[in-house]
Amino acid sequence: MCPPCTPFLENGDVNYDIIKRYVDHHVDFGVLNVFVTGTTGEGNSLTQSERKKVTEAWIAAGRDRLKTFIIHVGTGNLRDSQELARHAQDVGADAISCVSPTYYKPETIDDYVSYMAQVAAAAPRLPFYLYDIDFITGLTFSMDEFIRLAKPRIPTLRGLKHTSPSFPSMNTLLVRHSDCQVFLGSDELYLEALSIGIDVTICNSYLGHVLNRLKTAFDKADIATARIEQNRALEVCNIRRKYGLSFPGGTKAILRAIGLDVGQPRSPLSPVTEATVDKVRQDLEAIGFFEWGLRK
Amino acid sequence: MCPPCTPFLENGDVNYDIIKRYVDHHVDFGVLNVFVTGTTGEGNSLTQSERKKVTEAWIAAGRDRLKTFIIHVGTGNLRDSQELARHAQDVGADAISCVSPTYYKPETIDDYVSYMAQVAAAAPRLPFYLYDIDFITGLTFSMDEFIRLAKPRIPTLRGLKHTSPSFPSMNTLLVRHSDCQVFLGSDELYLEALSIGIDVTICNSYLGHVLNRLKTAFDKADIATARIEQNRALEVCNIRRKYGLSFPGGTKAILRAIGLDVGQPRSPLSPVTEATVDKVRQDLEAIGFFEWGLRK
Amino acid sequence: MCPPCTPFLENGDVNYDIIKRYVDHHVDFGVLNVFVTGTTGEGNSLTQSERKKVTEAWIAAGRDRLKTFIIHVGTGNLRDSQELARHAQDVGADAISCVSPTYYKPETIDDYVSYMAQVAAAAPRLPFYLYDIDFITGLTFSMDEFIRLAKPRIPTLRGLKHTSPSFPSMNTLLVRHSDCQVFLGSDELYLEALSIGIDVTICNSYLGHVLNRLKTAFDKADIATARIEQNRALEVCNIRRKYGLSFPGGTKAILRAIGLDVGQPRSPLSPVTEATVDKVRQDLEAIGFFEWGLRK
Amino acid sequence: MCPPCTPFLENGDVNYDIIKRYVDHHVDFGVLNVFVTGTTGEGNSLTQSERKKVTEAWIAAGRDRLKTFIIHVGTGNLRDSQELARHAQDVGADAISCVSPTYYKPETIDDYVSYMAQVAAAAPRLPFYLYDIDFITGLTFSMDEFIRLAKPRIPTLRGLKHTSPSFPSMNTLLVRHSDCQVFLGSDELYLEALSIGIDVTICNSYLGHVLNRLKTAFDKADIATARIEQNRALEVCNIRRKYGLSFPGGTKAILRAIGLDVGQPRSPLSPVTEATVDKVRQDLEAIGFFEWGLRK
Repeated sequence: MCPPCTPFLENGDVNYDIIKRYVDHHVDFGVLNVFVTGTTGEGNSLTQSERKKVTEAWIAAGRDRLKTFIIHVGTGNLRDSQELARHAQDVGADAISCVSPTYYKPETIDDYVSYMAQVAAAAPRLPFYLYDIDFITGLTFSMDEFIRLAKPRIPTLRGLKHTSPSFPSMNTLLVRHSDCQVFLGSDELYLEALSIGIDVTICNSYLGHVLNRLKTAFDKADIATARIEQNRALEVCNIRRKYGLSFPGGTKAILRAIGLDVGQPRSPLSPVTEATVDKVRQDLEAIGFFEWGLRK
Repeated sequence: MCPPCTPFLENGDVNYDIIKRYVDHHVDFGVLNVFVTGTTGEGNSLTQSERKKVTEAWIAAGRDRLKTFIIHVGTGNLRDSQELARHAQDVGADAISCVSPTYYKPETIDDYVSYMAQVAAAAPRLPFYLYDIDFITGLTFSMDEFIRLAKPRIPTLRGLKHTSPSFPSMNTLLVRHSDCQVFLGSDELYLEALSIGIDVTICNSYLGHVLNRLKTAFDKADIATARIEQNRALEVCNIRRKYGLSFPGGTKAILRAIGLDVGQPRSPLSPVTEATVDKVRQDLEAIGFFEWGLRK
Repeated sequence: MCPPCTPFLENGDVNYDIIKRYVDHHVDFGVLNVFVTGTTGEGNSLTQSERKKVTEAWIAAGRDRLKTFIIHVGTGNLRDSQELARHAQDVGADAISCVSPTYYKPETIDDYVSYMAQVAAAAPRLPFYLYDIDFITGLTFSMDEFIRLAKPRIPTLRGLKHTSPSFPSMNTLLVRHSDCQVFLGSDELYLEALSIGIDVTICNSYLGHVLNRLKTAFDKADIATARIEQNRALEVCNIRRKYGLSFPGGTKAILRAIGLDVGQPRSPLSPVTEATVDKVRQDLEAIGFFEWGLRK
Repeated sequence: MCPPCTPFLENGDVNYDIIKRYVDHHVDFGVLNVFVTGTTGEGNSLTQSERKKVTEAWIAAGRDRLKTFIIHVGTGNLRDSQELARHAQDVGADAISCVSPTYYKPETIDDYVSYMAQVAAAAPRLPFYLYDIDFITGLTFSMDEFIRLAKPRIPTLRGLKHTSPSFPSMNTLLVRHSDCQVFLGSDELYLEALSIGIDVTICNSYLGHVLNRLKTAFDKADIATARIEQNRALEVCNIRRKYGLSFPGGTKAILRAIGLDVGQPRSPLSPVTEATVDKVRQDLEAIGFFEWGLRK
């Protein structure tokens, strides 16, 4: 599954027109499930109206070519998230996911569950996934406890997206809540995640082939091959780190480097210069990405 | 200057009707300047439409009775903040103030200045104040450097609201940027702030008389009296701490305890029970608030 | 490899006498390599004289029964760490490892490398392992960069102990520094670590059989069995979490629960009551530890 | 009161010989009370033997010329701190102060009090001051609660050294524990501290005249003059910040710049180059330090 970027024009408006081509890109890379307007998608930098249009654009452009649309509806406030949840259901999304507000944060796990229950209730026909990303929200509530408390209160709860480098809590979740699905939110940890039984990672689209091959190898117990693929994904991530690029910034830089111009991240995030994109392209070449990254 | 709470009804809607009475309350407590939809005002928990209406309600109800309206326009994204800035100017606000987004944060001080410059430019006739509140945003850029870089880029820049317990950086600002105004954002540190030359604190309305007396005493070099008043304000703050109440939650609890029902904070913040409000009221009585807090 | 606790008597003195029995315990659990006076070993709570005696006691008692002795020599200051390094070499240790001071911390990676180079140089015949434990030291220097800078300056450098839940940096290390050994410092992440090629974890002794079986299963590509064993280790760790026990405190509680009385952690750490130990024992029984934990 | 640096020779040994001259320096700057081997004094970078000798050297050299010797006895472990407490009492110190260990930290406030009670009991004839420095220890226990719990358990408790930019907790302490003395640990906040009734700051020696004049002005209610002096102290602190110098590093750089060569901080802290010292000296000249800083 992939969290597409939201493409912007030079004037800062959303570039809705390119989304069709972006769907092609996903198909080319073998990624048929999308997680729309999440962190990589800069959902929290969009206005309500932009977010709805972006969601509609992805579903319209991808309806016949992609499989699953999970819409991230986390915002700074309950009412907007409820509205986005209703909208997602109305326009035919397959599921919703929600992150905590980051200005006013839940002070207790009960408040956290209660907030998410109110969001989920606005889209009663859609599966609900908590979006847990501790290094952005600063929330460190136990996900095991969240699921335990939330199950009776959120009938649509199906699991969570876990975007944290911390594995122990994920493993505890798997053991204690086998009816919940845990999505990993990382390109770099898929092999480790597979080892404990997490099948799905929400990864950058351009790593689709690499991570698909990784999974195939792992499923055949071919650990040596799986490691080679994981290391390839790691090297791509390390290019982002080398230039100090943020999540949406780095993803956009790599997409530009491989020929899909999704523009800059929205202010206050740093724009990425053409010079940096050139260096990223050279580094991708140096590690062989244009061979192993583009082929099935 | 006071940052009023946003009052809510039991169903979670904004209680616009009570704002007239809330203006009376401000007048009663000798506070004639308001900082609307800031942190205490739960601005970042409101939808765009609610925020505009709250701003309009304060200006309408307070036009002839209050003096200054500073509108906080910080949101999660640039476009919404620009829209709120334009709106504030259109409806007759005296100034705007803006906090950084907290999901996507500026990675460099240049990006931070650039973001604020774009917001300020949307209300070119209104003075602009940065809203710096490090313990919420996590941003620790030097305010001295911010002002230095921002002066040539934000022609309307007039100063900042500094909501942090840290004094050294405030003092450096005062020394280096005497043309900028620094608003303290604390009830507990006004005497310390006055000692170094900061005249204005953005304080809770119910401490209006206490802090006004504090300032009068300080201006007469009557430090002993000033300390008595500061300690009174401190004891009120310590009641909030004693019950673990958040900023809007604690303020709302005290307002309810003294007879102004502005409702609960919006989810995901914790509601404050009637039992806690009763305890807060008893504690306020015990420290004498209903004598020294209510008289001029 | 296991980091033994330092046993204390009721009066707070080190209980050197029990170390022989503790060696037996290691042999019983199939753990023949020890990491002495590390975090679990409360090295940083011991005086210099106690630390030396503890090291000597382990080597004396374990000489013919254990295989490898890595001595942790990290302290609050350079001179003490150098002295412990010399001492470790003199008394026949196999290697040393060192953590950063935590009161005065290196401000640059060069200072960090320089500090460790001075410690390592005091034991020029012993392999040196950096001890990286970010959640205690607060240091987040890149280990990849540390190794790169340290190789030419620390001729005895052989690798590092990585005690952090974060995997990506470990993986980068493995890929870029195949001549360095990375020890995992966790009971809960061994399967994930094995998946990317880390063979050794510095684990609690009582999980020796569990983790040995885990490794055997993994080496046969029997992931299903490996997961069962990893989950067993995880459940033991979760008992520690359930009662809020610190690293040495939790380990000591479990050892007491299974019959080896190594006493309390030294102040300022919290003592563990007998009542808590009883609950820990019941929980260990409930998860079956006394069956699968004790058999090869 | 001043926390002297520990002077080092080029080979890293303590430079005991220069301490006599360093006492002269204190007398010259009108600072007659010393806080020995604290944070500025790099106590936690010294071996036990060095610390005792440094204490002895200060008392010997200062006996007839200085007034008060408070010895900091905080270390990484209880036993060493108890030994230093006993030693301080034996060699004629006036009081002791102790910081928490920073590797193993107290998990509860009871453990914290208990630890300090054991240290204080080792010097039963000396007044005891807690050393609270949250940005180094990471401990955020309420000092109000600490004092409340510690009073019945530490008969020698006389107060605390509060080294934090946070004022509200200090003010609460003053109001609730008027029998306890609060020492501020800052050069930059003395005016703010005086305003709420804290008389003593543990300041850098070279600011002795400045801060003495500040206090004299404040006591005469001459706030304007007090501000001038506070701003001078602030500008000196800002020089340290400008070059990114740590506490002992910056203090040592300034001492070198004004002619007292106390050497470098001990590794792992960064050494300060002669070039930086030159720049510091020029900056001190530029702000007029060599006029207003040196005269009574």
